[in-house]
Amino acid sequence: MKVAVVGASGYGGGELLALLLNHPKVEVNIAVSRKLAGEYVFRTHPNLRGRTSLKFSPLDMDMITKESDLVFFSTPHGVSKNLVPKVLEVGTKVIDLSPDFRLRNAEDYPKWYGWEHPYPDILRKAAYGIPELHRDEIRNASLVACPGCIALSGILALVPVAKAHMVEKDKIILDSKIGSSGSGEKPSLSTHHPERSGVIRPYMPSGHRHTAEIEQELNLFGGDGHKVGLSAHAVDIVRGILSTAHVFPNEPVEMKSLWKAYRDVYGNEPFIRLVRDQKGIYRLADPKVVVGTNFCDISFEIDSHLDRIVLFSAIDNLVKGAAGSAVQSMDIIHGWEETLGLEFLGFHPV
Amino acid sequence: MKVAVVGASGYGGGELLALLLNHPKVEVNIAVSRKLAGEYVFRTHPNLRGRTSLKFSPLDMDMITKESDLVFFSTPHGVSKNLVPKVLEVGTKVIDLSPDFRLRNAEDYPKWYGWEHPYPDILRKAAYGIPELHRDEIRNASLVACPGCIALSGILALVPVAKAHMVEKDKIILDSKIGSSGSGEKPSLSTHHPERSGVIRPYMPSGHRHTAEIEQELNLFGGDGHKVGLSAHAVDIVRGILSTAHVFPNEPVEMKSLWKAYRDVYGNEPFIRLVRDQKGIYRLADPKVVVGTNFCDISFEIDSHLDRIVLFSAIDNLVKGAAGSAVQSMDIIHGWEETLGLEFLGFHPV
Amino acid sequence: MKVAVVGASGYGGGELLALLLNHPKVEVNIAVSRKLAGEYVFRTHPNLRGRTSLKFSPLDMDMITKESDLVFFSTPHGVSKNLVPKVLEVGTKVIDLSPDFRLRNAEDYPKWYGWEHPYPDILRKAAYGIPELHRDEIRNASLVACPGCIALSGILALVPVAKAHMVEKDKIILDSKIGSSGSGEKPSLSTHHPERSGVIRPYMPSGHRHTAEIEQELNLFGGDGHKVGLSAHAVDIVRGILSTAHVFPNEPVEMKSLWKAYRDVYGNEPFIRLVRDQKGIYRLADPKVVVGTNFCDISFEIDSHLDRIVLFSAIDNLVKGAAGSAVQSMDIIHGWEETLGLEFLGFHPV
Amino acid sequence: MKVAVVGASGYGGGELLALLLNHPKVEVNIAVSRKLAGEYVFRTHPNLRGRTSLKFSPLDMDMITKESDLVFFSTPHGVSKNLVPKVLEVGTKVIDLSPDFRLRNAEDYPKWYGWEHPYPDILRKAAYGIPELHRDEIRNASLVACPGCIALSGILALVPVAKAHMVEKDKIILDSKIGSSGSGEKPSLSTHHPERSGVIRPYMPSGHRHTAEIEQELNLFGGDGHKVGLSAHAVDIVRGILSTAHVFPNEPVEMKSLWKAYRDVYGNEPFIRLVRDQKGIYRLADPKVVVGTNFCDISFEIDSHLDRIVLFSAIDNLVKGAAGSAVQSMDIIHGWEETLGLEFLGFHPV
Repeated sequence: MKVAVVGASGYGGGELLALLLNHPKVEVNIAVSRKLAGEYVFRTHPNLRGRTSLKFSPLDMDMITKESDLVFFSTPHGVSKNLVPKVLEVGTKVIDLSPDFRLRNAEDYPKWYGWEHPYPDILRKAAYGIPELHRDEIRNASLVACPGCIALSGILALVPVAKAHMVEKDKIILDSKIGSSGSGEKPSLSTHHPERSGVIRPYMPSGHRHTAEIEQELNLFGGDGHKVGLSAHAVDIVRGILSTAHVFPNEPVEMKSLWKAYRDVYGNEPFIRLVRDQKGIYRLADPKVVVGTNFCDISFEIDSHLDRIVLFSAIDNLVKGAAGSAVQSMDIIHGWEETLGLEFLGFHPV
Repeated sequence: MKVAVVGASGYGGGELLALLLNHPKVEVNIAVSRKLAGEYVFRTHPNLRGRTSLKFSPLDMDMITKESDLVFFSTPHGVSKNLVPKVLEVGTKVIDLSPDFRLRNAEDYPKWYGWEHPYPDILRKAAYGIPELHRDEIRNASLVACPGCIALSGILALVPVAKAHMVEKDKIILDSKIGSSGSGEKPSLSTHHPERSGVIRPYMPSGHRHTAEIEQELNLFGGDGHKVGLSAHAVDIVRGILSTAHVFPNEPVEMKSLWKAYRDVYGNEPFIRLVRDQKGIYRLADPKVVVGTNFCDISFEIDSHLDRIVLFSAIDNLVKGAAGSAVQSMDIIHGWEETLGLEFLGFHPV
Repeated sequence: MKVAVVGASGYGGGELLALLLNHPKVEVNIAVSRKLAGEYVFRTHPNLRGRTSLKFSPLDMDMITKESDLVFFSTPHGVSKNLVPKVLEVGTKVIDLSPDFRLRNAEDYPKWYGWEHPYPDILRKAAYGIPELHRDEIRNASLVACPGCIALSGILALVPVAKAHMVEKDKIILDSKIGSSGSGEKPSLSTHHPERSGVIRPYMPSGHRHTAEIEQELNLFGGDGHKVGLSAHAVDIVRGILSTAHVFPNEPVEMKSLWKAYRDVYGNEPFIRLVRDQKGIYRLADPKVVVGTNFCDISFEIDSHLDRIVLFSAIDNLVKGAAGSAVQSMDIIHGWEETLGLEFLGFHPV
Repeated sequence: MKVAVVGASGYGGGELLALLLNHPKVEVNIAVSRKLAGEYVFRTHPNLRGRTSLKFSPLDMDMITKESDLVFFSTPHGVSKNLVPKVLEVGTKVIDLSPDFRLRNAEDYPKWYGWEHPYPDILRKAAYGIPELHRDEIRNASLVACPGCIALSGILALVPVAKAHMVEKDKIILDSKIGSSGSGEKPSLSTHHPERSGVIRPYMPSGHRHTAEIEQELNLFGGDGHKVGLSAHAVDIVRGILSTAHVFPNEPVEMKSLWKAYRDVYGNEPFIRLVRDQKGIYRLADPKVVVGTNFCDISFEIDSHLDRIVLFSAIDNLVKGAAGSAVQSMDIIHGWEETLGLEFLGFHPV
C-alpha cells in the first residue's frame, strides 16, 4: 500500500516516516515538505540514513491523490483543513495528525484556534483517533483526526473516572510536563539549548488549546459539564509527557473501584499498561520507560489525607502522542494486527 | 564568629559550608561528618578545593559546644532532636536544617515521621525559619528550625492567598517538581544516573511529610482547616524546585487583588521576586533562573475557563530551600544585613 | 531456539533480553541473576513490562546446559571464564559479552585484568565477535567473545587505516566519550545523579583495559607494533560512545584514499555507515543518531594544517557495543539474515 | 568607575554584566545591544531581575566614549575592530572579548577570519588577556584582547610543557568538549534543544580559528614551530569546556618534572588549581566543578604504555573563558585585588 506524508520534515512527520518505513505492509512514496523539497529526507531525519534515499517533495495535491492509497497530514494547525477535502473527494482516506479536524463542533475553532472552520460537515464525520475509545469509528472512517499529544495523555488518564462518574466534573486539574520535541522542529529562543536546558518552565498555565479536546471526550464519555484546568510545563527531556491529574471524588473511593474503572475501559488494550507496582523505582508511570514506544502507562493513587485521586499517564509525545496512534489507526482501518509496525518495546536505560 | 556545621558531608551541609566560607562575618571551624572524619572537605565538595583545608571532624559535642558561637545541623531526620538540646543548654544558638524541630505540635511527629518527639517544650519555642513570615521570632530565637525545601516552595506560594482567605481551604493542590540533589548525597538505584536521567518520575503521589509543615503555616496565617494534596515528581535537573499550586477561589478573583495579596506579604522582601512579565521566555518563575541563589521567584495566573488560580514558585532547593534560608536566619539573629553572604545573582544561561 | 542469558539483570543483559524477546527465531527461557532470582524481570527492566512474565533464575549450570540451545553471558569480568567451559563441554554454543575470552594471548590477562586465565586453549579458539572483521570465524565458532564497547568503537574506526598501513603505528590517540550506562547497573558515588550529571569527566586517562583488545585487532590487520593511547571521558548521556581517533599519516594522504580504505573494509556492511555529508548538523558521526540501533557510524577528516587524520565512530554502547553485536553473531552462526532482530532504525529527535 | 559593555545581549556580555554589577568598584552605566535597544536587560538575562533596571542602549560611540572610564566589547568577530580605535583615541581603555585584536600578526586575519585587519599597529600593542601569562603587559595596556574560550583552555594546559620544551612541537592534539553556551545566544537548528540535547557532536574536526591563538602563545613561550591539531566537540551541558591534550614527550618524562613545569608557571596563581588527587570522583579536572567560577583546573598524567602525556583543563567558557578573565584584567589594570568580583566558589552539586 502506498502512502504519502504531508508535513514530513517535522518531528511528527519524521516519526511517521520511521514507523512506516519499518512497517511490513506499507510503502512510503511521497514525503512532502514545501521548505525542503528536493533535499534528502535522511539529512533532516538522520536515523533514516542508509534506510531510504527518498527526497522531500513539493506539495502537489494532484500527484498525492493520484499516487497514494492513504494520506497522512502532519502539518501545523490551519494547513490541512483546506487540503484534506481534496483527498477525501477522490475516495482516498486521510489520517490527520494536526488539530484541524479534532473538534466536532465547528464553533470551537474560532474560540480555541482563532479561525472559522470551512468544513463543518467533514468535522462531524471525522473519527477521533484514539483507538482505545473510538476503535469502531476509526475502522469505518474516511478521516481520522489524531489527538493532540497532551490531550491524549489527559484523556487516557481521565476517561475511566469520568465514565464511572467518580469525580467532580468542574474541578479537574491536569498538570502536564512535556519534553522539547513537543515544540516542533523550528528553532526559537525558547528552544535554544542554553535557554531550554535545565528548565521546569510553566509555559502555558492556562488556556492550552488541548483543553477543548479533553473536555470534548470527557463530556462524551462522562456526560456534559467537565471543566479541565490544564497547566503545561516544559522539562529537560526531548521526548515524553507525564500528565498528573488531580481530581476530587464525588464519594469516598476505594482502590478496588479504581482498578475496576480502568480495567473496564482498558482491559485488553495492547498499548495501555496499568502500572502500580509495590516496589521498585518504576512502580508508577514514567515517560522514560515509554520513549520510542506506542505505550501509554497509567497509574493511580488515592490520597487519604485530602479527598483526592491522583492519576498519572506517561507517553512518548511523538509516538503514542502522534505518529504511533496514527499508525495504530491505519492498522485498524485495514484490518491488520493492531500492533503491526508498533512492536518496539523501548529501552532500559535510556 | 565561629560556627560549626554538623552533617557537613551532605548537600545541604556542603552548600552551607560554601556560603559560610564566603561570609565576611563568619569562620567555619568545625565540619562534622561521622563517616568521613579525617578526610579533606574539598574531596567531597570539590568547589571548596583551594578555598579551605578543613577536614571533617567526628561528632564531639563537647568540642562543638565549647568552640562554636553558633551551630548548624544539617542531619537526616531523627538525629538532631537528641543533639540540639545539648547545644541550647550551654546557651549557644542553633539553626537546624533537619525536620526535627519544624512542627509545633509534638503529636505530629509520630504521625508524619514515625517517632515520638523527646522535647515537646523545645518544639514549642523553636522559630520556623522562613524570614519572610517569621522574621521577629527568628531574631529572638535560640533555635531556628528551617523548613523543608518543598514545604518552603509551597508555603511561599500559598500563604498570601491563604492569608487573604481567597481560596477553598480543603482543595489545595501542590504539584512539585524537584531535582536530584533533593534526594541527598547517598547513592541508590533511584539516583543512579542511567535510571535517574530523563525521568519525570512521580515518586511521592501523596503522603509527603512536608505536607505537615505546609498545612501548619497555612493554618497559622489563614486559619484552621487547610488541606494540601502534595504530589512530588523527580525531574532531570540537579538543583531546583518548581511547585505549581492549583487552588480554587472562594469568589471570583481579579488579578489586581492577587497582586495586592502578594505585595502585602512580600512587598520589600529582598529574596522574593514576583515574576509576571508580558513577554519573553522567562515571564514566569522557573528554577533555572534561581540556581545558586537565595531567591524565591513567584508567579500567579487566573484561569478564566475553570475557576482556578495557578501559582508557581521556583527555588534552589539547596539554597533558599536549605542553606540560604539558614544563613539568612543567621544574619537576622545577629542584626547583620539580611543579604550578607547571599548576594549571588545566579547565572544566565546555566 | 531456546536461549539462556546469564547476567540478565545488568544493562547488557537487559538489552539482550529486549532484543531476544523481539527476535522471531528465539525464545528466552532462562534469565539468570543470582542477586534477583525469583524477581520479575520487568521490575528491573521496565521496558519489558507487559511483554514478559519471566522471572530471574538462580545460576544453575545443569539447568542451563540442559535447556538451552545457546547461552549468552553478560557477566562482570572474571565470572564467565569458569562457567563457559561447562557449556561448551556439552556441545552448546556460547556468546560471551564479558572480557573473559577476548584476548587471544593468555599472558595478557594477568597484565590487563590481574588474573591468570584458566583456559588458554579455549581462548585460542574463541572468535572475536566483530562480524565486520571476523564473520567467517564467528560462523564456525563454538564460542564468540564479544568486544568491549569502547574497544569496538576504536577498532571499527581504526582498522581500515591500520590495514592500509596509512598511519604511524605507535602514536594512535583514541579520545573516547561515553554515557553513564557504560558504568553498569550498580549505583556508586561516581554514578549518583547529582555527581554524574553535567560532567565531562576524564575517568581513565590511560591504562584502560580495552587498549589490549584494540591493539590485538590492529596488529592482526595492520601488523605488529600498534600502540594506542586511549583516554576515556564520561559525559552526560545515558547511552552512546563517540570515539575520536587522532592519527598521523605516514605519507601525505588524500580523501580519496581514505574513502577507499573504509569502503574496502566496510563496503556492504549492513551496520556500518560512512557519514560525511557536505551540510546539515548531522554531517559527521554522533551517537545521538544511533541510540538504540546496531549501527556504527564512522566519519573521517584530514587536517591539512597539521599532518593528522581525525576519525570518529559513534555507537550505542549497549547495542552495537554489546547486545546488538551479540545478536548479530547469533544470526550469523545460525545462517539467519544478519539484520534479524536488529532492524530498529533509531529515533529523531531523542 | 563607570563602564560600558558593548554587545551586552550575548552570553559573554550578560556574564560580564552579572560580574560587574556585583563588583564593588564598578558601575555599569551603558549596556549596548543594537537589536534590543530600549528593552530591559533583565528580560534577556533573567538572573538580573530585581538587581538592575538598566535597559539596553543603541550603539552611540560618542556617548560611550564620553561617559565611560572603561569599555568592554563582547561583540561577534569583525565588529570591534572598527569601534575600538575610536575609544582608544580619547584615551579610554578597552577590554575586548572578541577575536578582533587577539592575533599579533595582521596576516593571520585573512587566513583565519577571512578579512584584512584595518589596524595592524593597534594589533601589535594589544595585550593578550591571559593574566597568568601576560600580567605585566595587561597592567600597562590600553587594549586587552581576551582569548577565545577553547584557546584559553588549550593554552593554559599546554604552555608549561611547551615552555619546558618537553614535548614534540608538531604533534600536539587538543580534543575539546564544549557546552552549548559556546555557540552564542542566537538560535539555530544546531542549537535547537531536541537536536542539541544528548549529542557528542564533532562540530569542528579541524580548522578551528582558536588554533591560531594557541600556536601564537605556544610559539611565544616555547619557540617557533608548534602545530596544534584541535578538534572541537559539542556535549550536552550549557557551560563548560574540558580540553584534553595528548602530547608526546621528547624524552622519557617523570611526574616530578611535570609537577615542576606546572608549578613554575602557575605557582601562586589565584585561579589555577592543579588537580591530581589520589582518590575520589573529582581527582581530575572536570568543568562541572568550575561552573560559574573563574578557575581553570588543570590535571596531567603520564601514559606509560604509549609515550604520551595527557593534559586536562576545565573552565567555564563564559567566566574564565570570557567575562571572568576580562574582569581579572580590569582588576589588574586598576591595581585592585585580582580576585575582586571573582570570589564565587562554584557549586556542589550542580
